[in-house]
Amino acid sequence: MSTYDVVIIGAGPAGLAVAYPLQEQGKRVAIIESDLWGGTCPNRGCDPKKMLMRGVEVKEAATAMLDSGIDGQVTIDWTKLMAHKRGYTEPVQTSTKQGLKEANIDTYSGAAAFVDPHTLMIGDQQITGEKIVIATGQRPAVIDIPGQEHLSSSTDFLDLDQLPQEIVFIGAGYITFELAVIAQAAGAQVHIIHHNQQPLKGFDQELVTALVAELSTQGIAFHLDTSPKALKKEADYYVLETDKGNFRADMVIGATGRIPNVETLQLERAHVEFDQHGVLVDTYLRTNQPHIYAIGDVLSKQLPKLTPVASFEAQHVVKVLAGKQEPIQYPLIPTLVFGHLKLARIGVSEKTIQKNTDQYSSEVIDLSTWYTYQRINDKQAKMTVVYDQAHNIAALTILSTLADELINTFVFVLGLDLTKDDLSRMIFAYPTPVSDLSSMI
Amino acid sequence: MSTYDVVIIGAGPAGLAVAYPLQEQGKRVAIIESDLWGGTCPNRGCDPKKMLMRGVEVKEAATAMLDSGIDGQVTIDWTKLMAHKRGYTEPVQTSTKQGLKEANIDTYSGAAAFVDPHTLMIGDQQITGEKIVIATGQRPAVIDIPGQEHLSSSTDFLDLDQLPQEIVFIGAGYITFELAVIAQAAGAQVHIIHHNQQPLKGFDQELVTALVAELSTQGIAFHLDTSPKALKKEADYYVLETDKGNFRADMVIGATGRIPNVETLQLERAHVEFDQHGVLVDTYLRTNQPHIYAIGDVLSKQLPKLTPVASFEAQHVVKVLAGKQEPIQYPLIPTLVFGHLKLARIGVSEKTIQKNTDQYSSEVIDLSTWYTYQRINDKQAKMTVVYDQAHNIAALTILSTLADELINTFVFVLGLDLTKDDLSRMIFAYPTPVSDLSSMI
Repeated sequence: MSTYDVVIIGAGPAGLAVAYPLQEQGKRVAIIESDLWGGTCPNRGCDPKKMLMRGVEVKEAATAMLDSGIDGQVTIDWTKLMAHKRGYTEPVQTSTKQGLKEANIDTYSGAAAFVDPHTLMIGDQQITGEKIVIATGQRPAVIDIPGQEHLSSSTDFLDLDQLPQEIVFIGAGYITFELAVIAQAAGAQVHIIHHNQQPLKGFDQELVTALVAELSTQGIAFHLDTSPKALKKEADYYVLETDKGNFRADMVIGATGRIPNVETLQLERAHVEFDQHGVLVDTYLRTNQPHIYAIGDVLSKQLPKLTPVASFEAQHVVKVLAGKQEPIQYPLIPTLVFGHLKLARIGVSEKTIQKNTDQYSSEVIDLSTWYTYQRINDKQAKMTVVYDQAHNIAALTILSTLADELINTFVFVLGLDLTKDDLSRMIFAYPTPVSDLSSMI
Repeated sequence: MSTYDVVIIGAGPAGLAVAYPLQEQGKRVAIIESDLWGGTCPNRGCDPKKMLMRGVEVKEAATAMLDSGIDGQVTIDWTKLMAHKRGYTEPVQTSTKQGLKEANIDTYSGAAAFVDPHTLMIGDQQITGEKIVIATGQRPAVIDIPGQEHLSSSTDFLDLDQLPQEIVFIGAGYITFELAVIAQAAGAQVHIIHHNQQPLKGFDQELVTALVAELSTQGIAFHLDTSPKALKKEADYYVLETDKGNFRADMVIGATGRIPNVETLQLERAHVEFDQHGVLVDTYLRTNQPHIYAIGDVLSKQLPKLTPVASFEAQHVVKVLAGKQEPIQYPLIPTLVFGHLKLARIGVSEKTIQKNTDQYSSEVIDLSTWYTYQRINDKQAKMTVVYDQAHNIAALTILSTLADELINTFVFVLGLDLTKDDLSRMIFAYPTPVSDLSSMI
């Protein structure tokens, strides 16, 4: 039986970001993966999604400039766009394993299950770790309706050889928004059904409404206050029954949330506590077993479950394991819904703002008439700024083609508490979205 | 004769950025403009150039994705692209004057000439100012060759009703690079002649060579070590004679530099010193006449002559006039050559680096294989990082479609002296160009 200083369960961005630095510190490290080496993000998450999104960005940028100097229209060739994506994703597993091998980190393929608090079983192999890090992530939740076995997931969508003609998405969270935009731009007829009136509920609802209006104009059909009842398979299509009628579709994608990968771990044998949202940890990211840590999407926490957050947690565990006993302090975390038109936010959560309306004031700034947005015909560009009682910026939401660039700029501005005066002492390249900054705060 | 607290000569970005704050402080302010209200930048400089550049960005982004998921090609419709630009530029003069009027700032149209150190004549009107700010900017230099009267300038190019078939640019500085890229993408046959082997001499020459190679592949013909001798007009075309042969062209654009607008000011009557590069000032931006200041492109200085630098100087003069006697301290100034493929730099000047090769080391990083660049098929993406002897970053040059976004990010990183450790405490939206930052420094 092999013995390690640290055993990491899960070779996604979180697990890998723990493995390498620990190995460099001279620790004996093993890492276990039951599914795809590299994890969700590079194989079937953020990275491949945004590879496909390039087709949307280019197509919509051209469409926005029709009658403003661009003639002709381009279309998305699904097969080639998928090949473009696969050009990135296909080497991920091999290169991940190769990197680990070169770094002398032992790799185990298979589902890990605790035998006791220090021992894990992978198939018929047992290994022990003085410390163990759980980084198994999440997977799409399955909707509990009759015919649920016919539901597809984001994973299926991201690797489709052919684009179905009619696609229904269940659930209007960020995954649906992103994939629906890709599907529609590539030529599919897209329906989104959502059980209440609040799609993207973590974002400023005025800007969400503007985004929904724009996507509706482009052809995506939103059906709010609509709940799925059953999914039936016919000869060569599906029928989704809802409380508002039936939808015919070639593919029905369930995207109503994600659930932590904990079941097969046999956490009870290690006496590690968890709930339906994931593994419970303290501020050092330690479970109730002081030698077992958990990081990334598998954590039970209120924070957004995002790759850079997982990496941040990984860095923290590395420090804790090196003896730095500091509680984790999360910085501002920007969130971003990709698309041609993007929605991004940073700051105090929407929930907090809505619960304490007396403590916050807000204004919506129409950016579409600003030079930066007029130049690219970004007619929907707007920004909601939320102020606290001292009139400091508490949160910001941006709806724009350029929201990704701007939100990262605000990571600096808000994260480092930069004042208008600080910014006036800086010179940015002009004209750029960032050179507008002094007019924004 | 009207008397003012402050008279500003030149209603461009520099002059306007002085006028408004002084007026708000209760000063009686006049502003004089001999040409276009709003100045070069919004009328025939940075802003209109980048309006036209949108056509290039969209066309080249689509071209880069051919065979990677985008089918079809778009073309630039010059007439519509020019209309797009004019949609922005045409209201500039009126809105500039309107804004000044509403702010109760007196406006005078015409060329200003000093009568004595406090008195200016505009046509047959005389006004006096207790303080005077010179902000008259620059204009394109005219090349001293026979037939120079047939040369066109960037101003002419930026307002062309029809795109000429063959265009020759004389001088390979940033204005030529930007306009040549627009002309070529819009369908013109473009030649660039340059008197030595160093186009864009203020930038890292390895990346300049890569940019020139890429633009050559796209069809722009570079002729280095080539000097113009004479320009002749034939029936319906021009012939540019050079030491390396003749060039036939429908338009020949001289872009060999810009010269300060000082001649008509009669500076000698106010005893204000100037040289061929512009008006001489001290570190308070005061001329040798303590009540006369100068800001913006009209200054004789080593720094890049850019709109945000002019605005920075304007802010400084406002402070000095309000009694804050602080010498101006320029922050890091990023420079950027726009295009689909952009070239940007920040930090210690190329000249300083080349003069002190023993004090600096550098490395070129190929970014084209990174996810961010693979995603958009940015096959030329590279970055040169120059380190000082303590291995701190002294300068950075980036060649990439995304160089504009990245260079502004480095304004924060280098301007605020952020370390790798500081950056590890920040979370950026992922995946974005900025989320690569921790791998870059």
